[in-house]
Parts: sequence; C-alpha cells; structure tokens
Amino acid sequence: MNRPAMTVGELARRIGGRCEGDEGAWVHAVAGIREAQPGDVTFVVNRRYAADVARTRATAVIVAEAWDRPSSATLIRVENPDAAFAKAAELFAPPPPPDPAGVHPTAVIGEGVEMGEGVGVGPYAVIEAGARIGARTVISAHVYVGHEAVIGCDCRLYPHVSIRERCRLGDRVILHNGVVIGSDGFGYVAAPNGVRTKIPQLGIVVVGDDVEIGANTTVDRARFGRTVIGCGVKIDNLVQIAHNVVIGDHSVIVAQVGIAGSTTVGARVILAGQVGVSGHLEIGDGAVVGAQSGVSKDVPPGSVMLGSPAIPMDRFKRIHAYTMRMPEFRAELENLARRLDALEARLRGTG
Amino acid sequence: MNRPAMTVGELARRIGGRCEGDEGAWVHAVAGIREAQPGDVTFVVNRRYAADVARTRATAVIVAEAWDRPSSATLIRVENPDAAFAKAAELFAPPPPPDPAGVHPTAVIGEGVEMGEGVGVGPYAVIEAGARIGARTVISAHVYVGHEAVIGCDCRLYPHVSIRERCRLGDRVILHNGVVIGSDGFGYVAAPNGVRTKIPQLGIVVVGDDVEIGANTTVDRARFGRTVIGCGVKIDNLVQIAHNVVIGDHSVIVAQVGIAGSTTVGARVILAGQVGVSGHLEIGDGAVVGAQSGVSKDVPPGSVMLGSPAIPMDRFKRIHAYTMRMPEFRAELENLARRLDALEARLRGTG
Amino acid sequence: MNRPAMTVGELARRIGGRCEGDEGAWVHAVAGIREAQPGDVTFVVNRRYAADVARTRATAVIVAEAWDRPSSATLIRVENPDAAFAKAAELFAPPPPPDPAGVHPTAVIGEGVEMGEGVGVGPYAVIEAGARIGARTVISAHVYVGHEAVIGCDCRLYPHVSIRERCRLGDRVILHNGVVIGSDGFGYVAAPNGVRTKIPQLGIVVVGDDVEIGANTTVDRARFGRTVIGCGVKIDNLVQIAHNVVIGDHSVIVAQVGIAGSTTVGARVILAGQVGVSGHLEIGDGAVVGAQSGVSKDVPPGSVMLGSPAIPMDRFKRIHAYTMRMPEFRAELENLARRLDALEARLRGTG
Repeated sequence: MNRPAMTVGELARRIGGRCEGDEGAWVHAVAGIREAQPGDVTFVVNRRYAADVARTRATAVIVAEAWDRPSSATLIRVENPDAAFAKAAELFAPPPPPDPAGVHPTAVIGEGVEMGEGVGVGPYAVIEAGARIGARTVISAHVYVGHEAVIGCDCRLYPHVSIRERCRLGDRVILHNGVVIGSDGFGYVAAPNGVRTKIPQLGIVVVGDDVEIGANTTVDRARFGRTVIGCGVKIDNLVQIAHNVVIGDHSVIVAQVGIAGSTTVGARVILAGQVGVSGHLEIGDGAVVGAQSGVSKDVPPGSVMLGSPAIPMDRFKRIHAYTMRMPEFRAELENLARRLDALEARLRGTG
Repeated sequence: MNRPAMTVGELARRIGGRCEGDEGAWVHAVAGIREAQPGDVTFVVNRRYAADVARTRATAVIVAEAWDRPSSATLIRVENPDAAFAKAAELFAPPPPPDPAGVHPTAVIGEGVEMGEGVGVGPYAVIEAGARIGARTVISAHVYVGHEAVIGCDCRLYPHVSIRERCRLGDRVILHNGVVIGSDGFGYVAAPNGVRTKIPQLGIVVVGDDVEIGANTTVDRARFGRTVIGCGVKIDNLVQIAHNVVIGDHSVIVAQVGIAGSTTVGARVILAGQVGVSGHLEIGDGAVVGAQSGVSKDVPPGSVMLGSPAIPMDRFKRIHAYTMRMPEFRAELENLARRLDALEARLRGTG
Repeated sequence: MNRPAMTVGELARRIGGRCEGDEGAWVHAVAGIREAQPGDVTFVVNRRYAADVARTRATAVIVAEAWDRPSSATLIRVENPDAAFAKAAELFAPPPPPDPAGVHPTAVIGEGVEMGEGVGVGPYAVIEAGARIGARTVISAHVYVGHEAVIGCDCRLYPHVSIRERCRLGDRVILHNGVVIGSDGFGYVAAPNGVRTKIPQLGIVVVGDDVEIGANTTVDRARFGRTVIGCGVKIDNLVQIAHNVVIGDHSVIVAQVGIAGSTTVGARVILAGQVGVSGHLEIGDGAVVGAQSGVSKDVPPGSVMLGSPAIPMDRFKRIHAYTMRMPEFRAELENLARRLDALEARLRGTG
C-alpha cells in the first residue's frame, strides 16, 4: 500500500491550480472535508460546506477561483474544483486490483465461443456456446454469459452478472455486480377467471457503447424485437427496465427507478431516484423528472416534471405551496361564512 | 440461425386469421410496428399506434376484426391480435438455448439429494444435502439450493438463484436470475437504548404451482410457519415480500412492489408497480392497487385503490382534480373576501 | 427431523410464564394463530388478532399478563409475549443446516489471504489476494470477496454476496444472499452536450459490528474516503445506499429505501419502507421517517416526518385531512358565492 506523496505546490501544478498558503507542505491522500486529517487534501463546491472549510484539519483545500471564505488550510484555486479533486483523488488512489490474466482454468467455456485479444475471464465464470467476447473485456468471477450473447471490447462485467441468451453489449460497457440483462419480460394473457398464461419473451436486449449499469439492476428482454439502452446511458443500482423499453443516448436513470413496458425514453433525459414511468409512454429528449415522481402521460421534450402523477415542476410547486396552506384557507373560509352570517342576520333585521 | 419463412397466407392460416392484401408475400420475422422492415409481420392493439399502421414498413399487420384504418401492408384480421401475434412470434422465434443435459460434472450435489427423471443441473450449481428436485426441472449455472429444500417438477431456476434451507417450490415454477427465496425476515427486539437483537427466523417459504418470479426479487422466510406465494401468482422484478406474507392464487405483483410482514394479499389481486403495503393488513380478493400507492389499511375485496395513503380510486381522482384547481379556489376565496369587504363597507355607510 | 415435544407446563416454565388451563397437554411446534393446529403453541400481541384467540385450534396461546379475552386453548401469561414466543420458537426449531466445515476444495483462495480459526468457506467461493477473514466467519457458496477486503469474526455471508476490493466488515456482520458491498458510486462529469465521463470511485465501504443487511441490497463505495454503515445498523432487502453515505449506529433502514450520495443519517434513525432521501442531507439522531416519504431537506434530531416532500408528521396528517375534505370545501365555497350573489342582488334592489 505504498501511496505517492507530494507537496501542495506540486499537486497544484498537476491539477492546474494556484496555491495560496504553504506550498511546501506534504499531502498524501484525499478525504472529505469533515473527515480530513493533516496530510490530506480536500475540496469544496457546495456552499453548504462553507463553514467546514474554516475548521477543516486538511492540509489543503481545493476551491473555486472565486472562493472568498477563510481557511487555515492552504487553498488551491482552480476553475472546476470537482474535476480538479477527481484528478487529485486519482493521483493518490491505491492501484486497482489486477484483472484476471487470461481465462481462469475453472471457467466453463462453451463450444464455439469467440474471444478477442486480452480477454480476462475469472474463476467459475460460465460462457455458453456461441457467445462472442470483444478484446480486452473482463469477465469476472461467477459471471454468466448466455448462448450466442455478444459482448463488445473493453467491457467490464463484475461478479455475479448474468447476460441471458442472444443479448448484445456494445464497447466499454460496465455492468456492476448482480446486474441481470435479458430476463423475461412480465407478460401474460389473462383468462376471464384470472388465470394467466405466460407470453413467450422472444426478443433480446441491446446495450450501446459506453453504458454503465449499477448493481442488481434488471433489464428485461423484449417480448419480440429489442429492449434498447442507448449509447452513453448511465443507470444506477436497483433499477427496473421492462421489456421493449427504449432509452435514448446519454440519458441518466437514478437508483430504484422503474420503467414499464414499451415506454420510449428520449436522449439526455434524467429520471431521478425512485421515479416510476407507466408503460407505452414517450418521454421527450432532455426531459427531467424529479425524485419519486410517477409519470402516467407522455412528457414533452425539455420538460421538468414532478409529482405523482407528474406535472410540470413549477405547477407542482405552486399547487404544493397552496396545499401546505390548506389549514389557513379553511380558517379564511370559516371567517367568510361568519361574516356572511352576520350580514344576512343584519339584513334580515332591516328587511 | 436458420429461421422459418412462410407466406402471409400460410401465416394467417396458422394463427387462425383472415388475409386482406397480398397473400403470397413472404414473411420471416416479427417486429414492433415502428421497427418493422419488409419481410416482418407486426401487430397493433392499442389505438395509440393507429397512425403507425398507415406508415409501417412491415409486410403484414395483425389487427382486430373491427380494425378500420388504412394500411399499405397486408392485414391479417383475427379475433385477438395480442394472442395471434404471440403465436406468430413463436413460429418465427429462434430455438431456445439447450438446457443442461443431466448433471454438469462441476455441480456440487450434497448427501441424500433426490432428483427426478430428466433433471438438468448447470455448471457450478450447488445443491445441499437432503434437497429434492422434481422431474425435468432445470437448475441453471451458479444456482444455490439449500439443505432439505424441495423443488417440484418442470421448474426452471435461472443462474444465480438462491433457495435457502427447507423452502419449497411447487411444479412449473420459474425463478429468474438472482431471485432469493427464504432469506431471513427483518425482525428484531429493540432495547430502550435502541440496540436491536435479531429474532431468529425459523419458518420457511412455500411457493405454489405455476408461479413466476422476476429477476432479483426477494422473498423472506417466515419468522415461524410459512411465507406463502399462492398458485399461479406472477411476480415481477425487484419485488420485496417480507416474512409471513401470504399471497393468494393468481395475484399479480408488478415490479418494485414491497409488502411488509404478515400482510395477507387475497386471490387475483393486482398490485401495480412500486406499490408499498404496510404490515399486518388484509388485501381482499380481486382488489387492484394503482402504481406507487401506499396501502396503510385493510382493502375490501374488489376495491380499486390509489394514492399514498391509498383511498378508493374514484375518490382519489376527484380529490386530485380539486387539488389541481387549488390556485383557482384561492383566487375565488380572495374574490369572495373582496366582495364581502365591499358589502360590509356599504352597509357600514347605510348602518 | 426429530423435533422436541414438551408439556405446556414445561414450556411455560422454560419461557418464564404462568399457565391457565391444561398444563399436561403436549406441544411440539409453533405456528401463527390462524394456521395453528392441535399440538401447536401460538401467541398474540396485536389486539387485531383478539378474535382469533377465541377460535384458534392451537393447544396453547402465549399472551400478556393483562390479557382478558376468552380462549379454549391453555393460556401462558408472560410479561413480553413477543420475546417469550421467540424463545418458544427456538425451543421447537429444526436445527439450522450445518455450516461449511473448513475450506471447500473448490474454493479459490488468492495469494496471501489470511483466515482466522474455524473459518468456513463454501463451494465455489472466490476470495481474492490479500483478503483477511476473521475467526469463525462463514463464507457461503458462490460468495465473492475482493482484493484486500477485510472481514471480521463471526460474520455470515450467504450465497452470492459480493464484497468489492478493500471494503471492510466488522464482527458479527450478517449479509444475506445477493448483497453487494462496494460497487462503484454513481458519479459522472457532464459535458455541455450531455455526454458523461465516469468519475473514478476510489473509496471503500466500512461496515461496523453487529450489522445485518438484507437480500440484494447494494452499498456503493465512496468516491473517495468511506461509505459508512455504523455499528448495530439493520438494513432490510433491496435497499440502495449511495456513495459517501454515513449511517449512524443502531439505525434501521426498511426495505427498498434509497439514500442518495453524501447524506448523513444519524444514530437510532428509522427510515420506513420505500423512503427516498436526497443527497448531501443530514438526518438527525432518533428521527423517524414514514413509509414512502421523500426527504429533500435536513431533518432535525428526533423529528417524525411523513410525505413527499416530507414534513413533520402531525402537520402532514392535518393537511392530509383537509385535503381529503376538498370536495366539501369546494361546495362551501360555492354556497358562500351563492349567498353573496343573493345579498348583492338584494342590496342592488335596495341601493
């Protein structure tokens, strides 16, 4: 665990920043602003943590050019503290664990499996007949790759990932532990007495290039045709993508979102955590849906939606504010009724 | 990948339909109405896709008898387009991958395990001592079957399924990748200082015949006695079923639903996506609960519920409609107040 | 499956209770009050089940000292029926399945792995180089332990658990099937065109002593530093804990909760099922958040919150009650308007 150490000045130079304070102090690790100890470098972007900057024990703090709060630590001013800190974190990071070198002797490789150069396959991985694995892809321990599945180059499948038969991944795809690609969609024909008969799920899942999918997320195969995850899409943990869903390029799906069957999500859409989307809908390009919302209608491109059922966010906020004032409205209503009673009584008297 | 091809006329005959258009054209695959190419057959049920029928590139479209919209494709009229298309999809489907033939040499089979005729066990499956597996059941790669678990005939357990000790599955049960049956229920005794002591979870899970459970869904074993999934129940992905829950026959539980401990769900109930149900409740037979609802009270048989907390759907819709008009009510309230002010001022003048 | 049998009198003595009825009757199993058969002992705490006590077929029922309802069964009065029943259930429970004895020959153990006395490792477990496993810990079949991970003493990792590199578990930790510890956090730098670049997730997860984590729950590693699960924390199934979250000691996180990045949850907090918590928040010690709530602001210590967005529960209940009366308010508003119309008309006449 030999980690690099460097002076704050050297660090500032390597992350493209400007020092204010002791350039000669040594730093050897990154840490959060509250946990940081002497020898650590930390950073701050969110103004919520401004008070912490004053009292941090860190040796150095990465801040934005315009930062104007005091600190006992040396400041490193940069254009983008978030990105600069990411660079610093990489400089000090322990090396990643080694990938499996070649195919582990315990891996079970089916007939006719094709593997590109430099593929690593971990212990107890199972790759079924006819699958194709692109160059430099890492198939970790306990991964299951089904019959005739196609996986691109430079992918990384973490332990316990399952890819069902005939599904296809692009290049540079990352699947975290326990991801399931290509399980059967949830489809039945219901008899009048409620008994359901399974509809065969004959399609596949196609995952584009540069996709990352979080731990234990599930993506169902199409009833027929394809469930599609576009290029550059990032999906968090425990997300459910139903059969025949299409997700456009570079969309972001946060943890525990569920998207029902045959819905089309546009490009660069953001679905925040725990959002639910009904089936057979269209979410337009660039739309943003706030956390826990329930989308039950098509969403126009570029909209910002909130609530269950989801409505435009500014409308949601206005209605929510009124709703929070319900007790007050109730009191006003009673007050008006009393004033009317009085008026009516008086006019009855004068009538 | 030799797939069958046939003429539209032949297809119509095999799915029990009636042709309108070129009966001699060849089709060799199924596809969604928007993705379809020449040579594909597609279908339409939902009127949302009516416009797509006009411009589809498909060679043939399966429609209902009463369909009255134009299309350049050959139409195949059937009584039930959904069911007919399912048949067509099966006719053109690639053959499913072969099941494991017999017990893979790497499978670890405990002492006294009993297996019926024609059981297939994939590589690296582990079946613990005393388990019983019914005839023709498929235990895929990486499946774990615990001690004395009992699995019926003609079941299919996909890779990475876990069955804990003593749990029991009926016949024709399908468990998708990553399903966990029989994990400990979530039960503790809390001391006044907040420290919790685990309550042993000594019961089991009993799953009826013809049940299908989706990927990464979890079903906890009973604290004592049984957690029960009735016959014909269909459960989607990422669902949580807590200890001692009982689900009646032929109920449908959509993705990401959570049911808390000791709740009884009746027969033919439908819980839509992301519904949460509190513990110790009864959901009556045939009830339907809309997506994202939160059920905090017993639900009478046959009710249709919505909202969090859930109320009868028609009431939810009426209240929701009023809530959406809050800004307008607020304006009316202010208008009434102004009119009253004016009246009072005037009467004060005449008083 | 030789299970112990004893008289009700003997059982009462062993669980510290007092008999009312036939002390000599034999009991040999525990069961729920509705499922119980002759020969079973059951219990009741919740008054909801009072009617069931009268008609139970159980031989004995464990009740509180103050219980005053009739029953044909023998009653065993105890101070704490819940705890007493737990003891009874343990007395009658079938023995747990045997743990793996030593390291299974199929387990793949990396270089330099250190294991304490009495560690059990199941078939096809993979423990990567440099990992350390404390005494008496059980690593079940198909578990993956990453490079340099550290696991304490007396832990139990059920099948298909994944621990990524360098993460650390305390003593007596229980991880149920499919738990993922240390998957990458969900962090990207977004370019103006929406293309996202992965931010390396360089930190780890640290899990305290006496923690239990439910099936298929995911805990992401920190972007840098640590994601922390405090001592005695109990987490249910299918929960998502994002990067850099800190959970204080003895908190309880119910099924399907999601906690976004960098949020700090205090000690002895209870988050009920399906709660969502936004990122960068602080939930104070002892706070309770009701089911399906969405927490979007800091929560003061000891608060009880409900709703999405979450507000103090008593306020939520008041506003909710008013909201349910919206149709009535609407009618009152219309009534007032009519009365005002009448008054104005009359005054116009007299004006």
